Amino acid sequence: MFAIVPAGGVGSRLWPLSRAASPKFLRDLEGAGRTMLQTTLDRLAPVTEGIVVVTGSAHAPAVSAQISDDGASEVVAEPSPRDSMAAIGLAAAILHERHGDVVVGSFAADHAIRDAGAFHAAVRRAERIAAEGLIVTIGITPTAPSSAYGYIEAGSPLSAPLQGLEVARFEEKPVPATAAAYLATGRYLWNAGMFVMRTGVLLDVLAELQPELHAGLVAIARAWDTEEREAALAEHWEALPRLVIDRAVAEPMAERGVVAVVPAEMGWSDIGDFDALAQVSPRGADLEINSPGTFAHAERKVVVVGIPGAVVVETEDAILVTTRERAQDVKAAVDGLDGELEGLR
Amino acid sequence: MFAIVPAGGVGSRLWPLSRAASPKFLRDLEGAGRTMLQTTLDRLAPVTEGIVVVTGSAHAPAVSAQISDDGASEVVAEPSPRDSMAAIGLAAAILHERHGDVVVGSFAADHAIRDAGAFHAAVRRAERIAAEGLIVTIGITPTAPSSAYGYIEAGSPLSAPLQGLEVARFEEKPVPATAAAYLATGRYLWNAGMFVMRTGVLLDVLAELQPELHAGLVAIARAWDTEEREAALAEHWEALPRLVIDRAVAEPMAERGVVAVVPAEMGWSDIGDFDALAQVSPRGADLEINSPGTFAHAERKVVVVGIPGAVVVETEDAILVTTRERAQDVKAAVDGLDGELEGLR
Repeated sequence: MFAIVPAGGVGSRLWPLSRAASPKFLRDLEGAGRTMLQTTLDRLAPVTEGIVVVTGSAHAPAVSAQISDDGASEVVAEPSPRDSMAAIGLAAAILHERHGDVVVGSFAADHAIRDAGAFHAAVRRAERIAAEGLIVTIGITPTAPSSAYGYIEAGSPLSAPLQGLEVARFEEKPVPATAAAYLATGRYLWNAGMFVMRTGVLLDVLAELQPELHAGLVAIARAWDTEEREAALAEHWEALPRLVIDRAVAEPMAERGVVAVVPAEMGWSDIGDFDALAQVSPRGADLEINSPGTFAHAERKVVVVGIPGAVVVETEDAILVTTRERAQDVKAAVDGLDGELEGLR
Repeated sequence: MFAIVPAGGVGSRLWPLSRAASPKFLRDLEGAGRTMLQTTLDRLAPVTEGIVVVTGSAHAPAVSAQISDDGASEVVAEPSPRDSMAAIGLAAAILHERHGDVVVGSFAADHAIRDAGAFHAAVRRAERIAAEGLIVTIGITPTAPSSAYGYIEAGSPLSAPLQGLEVARFEEKPVPATAAAYLATGRYLWNAGMFVMRTGVLLDVLAELQPELHAGLVAIARAWDTEEREAALAEHWEALPRLVIDRAVAEPMAERGVVAVVPAEMGWSDIGDFDALAQVSPRGADLEINSPGTFAHAERKVVVVGIPGAVVVETEDAILVTTRERAQDVKAAVDGLDGELEGLR
């Protein structure tokens, strides 16, 4: 299997740790000594023949600097953002051009997974199912009725020896009451955005459902390993439609009954906001008075009084103060950084 | 009239702006270009013949450096803290030794008063009443049912030409419901800790009610302007009882009907905590999302998300995060700074 790692997004809910110039995937948020991207590649290496990291041209130098030059991974630089379907599709088309119809898996550059062994087992199961021509997603067994993730409704088990379930439906992020109802059925899994499929299957689906995107990606892929790469990007990239893979491929194919899910428990978190980071990497203040559950990341000593679940993040130029309950709203704050504050993004 | 300014207390509710080494009265909290002590002395100068600042020996050098050397003010250094009655009593006894029975007024070193004219008018009224032998306090017309202050219940007006009211009772800091009840009567004033009386009256009261304190203070005062000063302090200071002037003098004398109050509206605040400081000297964060009423004091840019009335104070070595509602609890935090955090006090 080849891995595709789309490394994009600003991670603005993790501002000021994540910035436009140095976004989440380039940072070591867990204090692991390796960045989130490096950890992702380390984790994939045992189950892949090669890895393609897709990132914006602005971040390509930093990405290249972070990945090893042993030839196991390469960087595909996008001239401008076009969301996940173009990023994943381009990498898949390039791999298809080089290797023919091979299984590829797309994995986020900035998620945390505590149990690498469970991850590898799930990837191998997914690979076997994908080899049969199905589109496979790895679904996370929910540990709480979270409203932060899309959900996957699982159907009947696949026939042996394949280990997985049919996907009945993909569901949007639910309100809390609906999330609780999902969990009560025992049939729902979190959508972690991990997709495994054959490049031939993907390209056929795109040719049918997104012909403009398909044509552009194939043209670029054909030129990729030649002197025509830049010209092809210049000609085709800008016009590509912006789509996410869920909407472009996974949901329509689930309706046709050709999507499967491999359930997994692997200590996964998308570390989408400071509440999630606090769960993965707890760090309290230096002194907390009536402020249980505080998360603090600072050089200075931090004292919190009377704010349960406080979040205090100090960096060289900015201090964020919020609560774990309001952690999702940090995005709104970053969107509000304009005028003389714009340099802080 | 001579003024006595007891400059003590750590102001721990204003940590980290106020520290043991550099407490509130030595700081310019309002951004006025003068410290709270300097502002206090500036304000008193037009209504006094001279000012005695009483402070702990640890702070005496810093206090001396801040006051002008024009002879209008002097510093009395206490070897150790003995609360307000000993501090005010010693200064009064020294002035009595030098000048005989004169009117003195005691005023805090770290309160804010917006209307100096109204203050001067109140002081002059208090001085005239004190000259008759009464003990006078200046009471603040309440602007809110605050639970942060003691209250003064006013009784009948004094006879003309004196402008003031009898004090019926002093009351402790009330719960909010009681404070609201006080305000509804229109008869209550905030106790701002300002007392004006003749030195002879004060010493007679102490001789009767606190004979040990009286004897010690008089012995030290007699030696004060001689070579015996240090010896007298060494002999008498340590054993002095710790009392506040309200309990030692004002309350017992109110029961005897010899205490009067001069009501005043002067834009007064004791700036006792960050909520009070925010009202006197408002300063918001650089960006506030759903956080109205935020107070921030920092070098870095501050962004607050989802915490109405947040308080964020950044200094070179520490960051405090709390809310205006919980501002009183900062004292508990400072009390908790021990072990490796003790150096932050």
